[in-house]
Amino acid sequence: MSSFSHPDFGAATFAGASDARFVPAPADGVLPEDFFSTTNLPTYVRIAGEWRMPREPRMDSALVLDADGSLWIREGRRVRKGDRVAVGHKEDGSDGIYVHAQAFLGATADGEFKFMTSEVSREKPIDYSLMARILIDERDRGGYPVWVTGPALVHSRARADMTWFIKNRFVGALLAGNAVAVHDIEASIFGTTLGMTGSGEATSGGHGLHMRAINRVREAGSIERAVEQGIVTDGIMHACVTHGVPYVLCGSIRDDGPLPGVHSDSMAAQDAMKRHTVKATMAILVATALHAIATGNMLPAFVTEADGSLRELSTICVDSSEFVVSKLKDRGTHQAFGVVTNAQDFMHILRLYVERELDARRMLTPRSVAAVSAR
Amino acid sequence: MSSFSHPDFGAATFAGASDARFVPAPADGVLPEDFFSTTNLPTYVRIAGEWRMPREPRMDSALVLDADGSLWIREGRRVRKGDRVAVGHKEDGSDGIYVHAQAFLGATADGEFKFMTSEVSREKPIDYSLMARILIDERDRGGYPVWVTGPALVHSRARADMTWFIKNRFVGALLAGNAVAVHDIEASIFGTTLGMTGSGEATSGGHGLHMRAINRVREAGSIERAVEQGIVTDGIMHACVTHGVPYVLCGSIRDDGPLPGVHSDSMAAQDAMKRHTVKATMAILVATALHAIATGNMLPAFVTEADGSLRELSTICVDSSEFVVSKLKDRGTHQAFGVVTNAQDFMHILRLYVERELDARRMLTPRSVAAVSAR
Amino acid sequence: MSSFSHPDFGAATFAGASDARFVPAPADGVLPEDFFSTTNLPTYVRIAGEWRMPREPRMDSALVLDADGSLWIREGRRVRKGDRVAVGHKEDGSDGIYVHAQAFLGATADGEFKFMTSEVSREKPIDYSLMARILIDERDRGGYPVWVTGPALVHSRARADMTWFIKNRFVGALLAGNAVAVHDIEASIFGTTLGMTGSGEATSGGHGLHMRAINRVREAGSIERAVEQGIVTDGIMHACVTHGVPYVLCGSIRDDGPLPGVHSDSMAAQDAMKRHTVKATMAILVATALHAIATGNMLPAFVTEADGSLRELSTICVDSSEFVVSKLKDRGTHQAFGVVTNAQDFMHILRLYVERELDARRMLTPRSVAAVSAR
Amino acid sequence: MSSFSHPDFGAATFAGASDARFVPAPADGVLPEDFFSTTNLPTYVRIAGEWRMPREPRMDSALVLDADGSLWIREGRRVRKGDRVAVGHKEDGSDGIYVHAQAFLGATADGEFKFMTSEVSREKPIDYSLMARILIDERDRGGYPVWVTGPALVHSRARADMTWFIKNRFVGALLAGNAVAVHDIEASIFGTTLGMTGSGEATSGGHGLHMRAINRVREAGSIERAVEQGIVTDGIMHACVTHGVPYVLCGSIRDDGPLPGVHSDSMAAQDAMKRHTVKATMAILVATALHAIATGNMLPAFVTEADGSLRELSTICVDSSEFVVSKLKDRGTHQAFGVVTNAQDFMHILRLYVERELDARRMLTPRSVAAVSAR
Repeated sequence: MSSFSHPDFGAATFAGASDARFVPAPADGVLPEDFFSTTNLPTYVRIAGEWRMPREPRMDSALVLDADGSLWIREGRRVRKGDRVAVGHKEDGSDGIYVHAQAFLGATADGEFKFMTSEVSREKPIDYSLMARILIDERDRGGYPVWVTGPALVHSRARADMTWFIKNRFVGALLAGNAVAVHDIEASIFGTTLGMTGSGEATSGGHGLHMRAINRVREAGSIERAVEQGIVTDGIMHACVTHGVPYVLCGSIRDDGPLPGVHSDSMAAQDAMKRHTVKATMAILVATALHAIATGNMLPAFVTEADGSLRELSTICVDSSEFVVSKLKDRGTHQAFGVVTNAQDFMHILRLYVERELDARRMLTPRSVAAVSAR
Repeated sequence: MSSFSHPDFGAATFAGASDARFVPAPADGVLPEDFFSTTNLPTYVRIAGEWRMPREPRMDSALVLDADGSLWIREGRRVRKGDRVAVGHKEDGSDGIYVHAQAFLGATADGEFKFMTSEVSREKPIDYSLMARILIDERDRGGYPVWVTGPALVHSRARADMTWFIKNRFVGALLAGNAVAVHDIEASIFGTTLGMTGSGEATSGGHGLHMRAINRVREAGSIERAVEQGIVTDGIMHACVTHGVPYVLCGSIRDDGPLPGVHSDSMAAQDAMKRHTVKATMAILVATALHAIATGNMLPAFVTEADGSLRELSTICVDSSEFVVSKLKDRGTHQAFGVVTNAQDFMHILRLYVERELDARRMLTPRSVAAVSAR
Repeated sequence: MSSFSHPDFGAATFAGASDARFVPAPADGVLPEDFFSTTNLPTYVRIAGEWRMPREPRMDSALVLDADGSLWIREGRRVRKGDRVAVGHKEDGSDGIYVHAQAFLGATADGEFKFMTSEVSREKPIDYSLMARILIDERDRGGYPVWVTGPALVHSRARADMTWFIKNRFVGALLAGNAVAVHDIEASIFGTTLGMTGSGEATSGGHGLHMRAINRVREAGSIERAVEQGIVTDGIMHACVTHGVPYVLCGSIRDDGPLPGVHSDSMAAQDAMKRHTVKATMAILVATALHAIATGNMLPAFVTEADGSLRELSTICVDSSEFVVSKLKDRGTHQAFGVVTNAQDFMHILRLYVERELDARRMLTPRSVAAVSAR
Repeated sequence: MSSFSHPDFGAATFAGASDARFVPAPADGVLPEDFFSTTNLPTYVRIAGEWRMPREPRMDSALVLDADGSLWIREGRRVRKGDRVAVGHKEDGSDGIYVHAQAFLGATADGEFKFMTSEVSREKPIDYSLMARILIDERDRGGYPVWVTGPALVHSRARADMTWFIKNRFVGALLAGNAVAVHDIEASIFGTTLGMTGSGEATSGGHGLHMRAINRVREAGSIERAVEQGIVTDGIMHACVTHGVPYVLCGSIRDDGPLPGVHSDSMAAQDAMKRHTVKATMAILVATALHAIATGNMLPAFVTEADGSLRELSTICVDSSEFVVSKLKDRGTHQAFGVVTNAQDFMHILRLYVERELDARRMLTPRSVAAVSAR
């Protein structure tokens, strides 16, 4: 994992920099004409001669200086009339706003002739061992790995593996859509997903089973109550509820039902997601273009440690095709590391490597592990 | 295009059929335990000895018999406590509900039907000429072709072609997401899409342009007003507004902004979409998995003509990979005909063939065409 | 795995059948005008009133009756002037040739057959457990599993897993291209594949390493000698040589080098491949379109057991996209079961399941396993 | 199109450079241990103080100084014992070999945050207008555009478009596999490709038609004679024969037949291809991974004009997925411009734009066009 230094604002480059300029928003949800549009990279704003980093960094938003002097990055729709919004287009600091792009996009162009330089490819090896170590380290340091998953995870046997990760405290929060919960609960109640059995066969009358599953939970009133009442007895949602792992179910126009608890309003869903992305220290995006890109939009490319130092926010994006990862990068989530494979296989091998690494660590440091499991 | 006969309910098979059984819904948005879960195929319900077809057919919903005796297919969330909902699992008519699956999923005997049921593969020829004829016929008979498009259409030069289809009355309604409108309006104001020029190069500072486009429209108050005020002067949304073609912009968690007029609530968006899908006589789904499947969910596989006869609802699904079309079919939209190609190229060639066919028809039947253009 | 009965030639359907008609080939490598073109399905030819099955079944070839009365399926290019070649287009037996299509392409009634006919989709579960059992059964009954692999297997860490399968006698023969051997040997000598390290980074000067690897083996004279001389010390080719597992390296126009031993003539390569496909009792095709389809072309869809009974030839095709498997099926290899995943992950999990199954069997039947390992 | 300057060998960087060192090859087809492995970039070799460019540039080969003092790039397999082969690993000129990588891979890394920077994506616009202009310019200046095509081109209606390009002198040479010719000739004789009609339907008995087409041509003795005898009356191969456009049919293990004239030996096929790639001034690679990468392997990234100046060799690679183009680039063909679309649509639109551009030019410069068409 890469760490990064803050820029040296004493350097000559920053000598002529002025303070950033703030202009009041003309109306609720409307930004001043020349508002500065943010990125997901470390950003520094010069206020009264001092370079400060805004809170809740994310891309495609505005810099807002609150009345109490605190500096935020805030979505345009949440800006209120009169809020002081930073303006300017320059990212080089001269107008008081500096985007520390070098840190992450650092030139690797050495002009040498090389093979295998494409970023995302099914032909590249996948370092499960490294991913397992990062994930365990995140857990053990009290990090907050955000998992974002699509329904392919539930269709296949990866459901058991996802449940394992939840139960073993590798999941800070789960962000998903209605379908993930629907198929997971269908699997718990009927043993099928979209009417398909665990071995991939369509069942007679199976097309209605997900609707029956939804209806049962709607009858119970909430997923939590469906768990309590013994309607849902295993799986991903059950594990979240019984292990106190927070989840966000975001609505979409594809939703059947929806299940109680789904944020059918997209903006409310974004707000709910962001309550977790601002805390994220790692992101694992599996088999979902919509949710992966939505999360990428609101995720900074970096983590600010308690001591103020910066490191890259490890972002793993898993999909069957190179396309989704490339799309994620094209939309600005440059730090994403792409794994081109089947979601079921990814989950299975990652779990295997995590289990092996845990075994290895257990043998090496019996005491520290005991301490961890005693928590 | 295929036509289908209604089943012969005088046949021996239906001799022992009973009336369908209706049970009151136990609560708002909750269906009785054994509710009949609908498909997108022609469905007949036996009420007082008479076989009737419900209104607003779609899949994954319930059959509701209203107090006034009218029979509807209605989403579970819209059912109110006490509504009479059909129960039963059998689709063969014996319990009073018959799903006419044979019509669409059965023998592929006749030559025409083969076109629409051919498997999905980039190696199959694409019959643009047939699609052009179907589209013109739909327009000329007063049909209602629903277009559902993803943003790839706007990134590329297909924007001009889509605008042409709107202006030439080939679009009954346009269903899309916030992004389509955002990129289209960015193109109108700044000449870029996601900061990329028309020739595909990323521009300096371009990452913020879609946010500036959104901000301008939010300032204007609506897309309509942005058109009036000369902020948006060309493109897809401009054509919809100036030619009175209805559009629905559905929100999603990926949305920046959103633009005014976007249905950020997914259920409200579904309701808005359905106001058009119930009228659809054809569907063209281009470069969008989310919206295509959402539309497929609420689209019957058939059109009921004014005289009560049935025909297949021509559904064309265009995507760069076989996957989206297969997924659409896997989720029940069996009638979809897949075109595996680039959205830009699809739009360009389809328009070309439509123009050629129009020329050809003009030469053959000068008077009828004159009549059409005088409408 | 499915077994199939021979047709009942006493049935009324076959009452009026005549003997098959044979016509001499007009020239070397040229078939008579109306030659019967074979399929990969069980085929029966009526000669002197008796229904016989030809030897070496494969598709796209001719039926040849040799002077000694033996009946063969033979590629057109191998037919000599005057050879007696069956003519006719009918496959229903009436003209003396019966293709038993029903057996494989017919009703999907029984539970087992469904596994092998399920559609191809990344959303379907993958039954590694079943594949592991089939593979172990094949080994233990003395079957001949033919593995056909592309270079993606070597780029990634699947190389170690493939080596494991060879060493543990799960590989009857390995069919591959020059590139598989080149990258495998590059990995043994330099620790890279196409200049990329095991963790996926391009190395400086790495683009020439595969050429240096080739040059070393050319200098040694053969892969076998390179193994003897300690130039190649581990990996797939090393395991084949040291464990006496036969391999065929087929040339292509993409080849660098080529390595000594590569069949650069495509027809010689086909002949070399066929010496193994005629013995195959199972086929595993991983990450290669060219070699998978070439093998599919010459592989019967069935295995004829020693007692004359028939069973399906289990064929597993692994690729990152649905396309390759669909293409394989489109070209007649209907029996292929598709696994849509990354080759590295497939190999890793399959090995894991095989190891688990071996452990399980060892515990259950200590003696029989001891017998097996004593062989 | 980009032009490039030769390096300034008077610059300080090259002051300390020594002459390149040549060492005799130890055996036929074996290179000296430290042979210099070539790239497809402009390469300069210092011999007796003079920097010279070798003839027939391509990657993955050796630099050979012939007895007559001429300098070649030559495949290892074609080197004879005693041939003088350049050795060394450095590409910076210090050891007498300079690879002018900067010219083509020039740093574009400005570290700015941008969207849409991925190289190959279906979401990028396709500039058909530019491609049409380049193609016409190549023809009109007497260039040598090499077309490399896969069978998808023939399955679909692109066959007519390819024929048009051949007839209108846009094709310097056609490089393809046996399958392209087989399906093209099947289409001419039977109106089907792989037994599928032009509208995509499988025909009864169709699976044998490509074998019958092959048999007819084998009977005639050659494709040329099949054209003469009126067996093949239209299509791609017919146009090549009747318009004197050279073609190379390369064999592969997937081949049925093969047709007479196919180079079934891969190395002979490579030699035949190279006779055209050394003359290429443009390359268009459509719907084929195998042939595209094989051609990329032997194609320089640049064209040397008669006056010694250099320009990029325009290379267009068309495929339904991003994967093939990325793979081509990963194997060193960095200059490839990727078009992610369906082959049929690509051919159709490219032809349309070429026709439009020809019309436009005709109107602008009536005389010069008259001159051209009088040739």
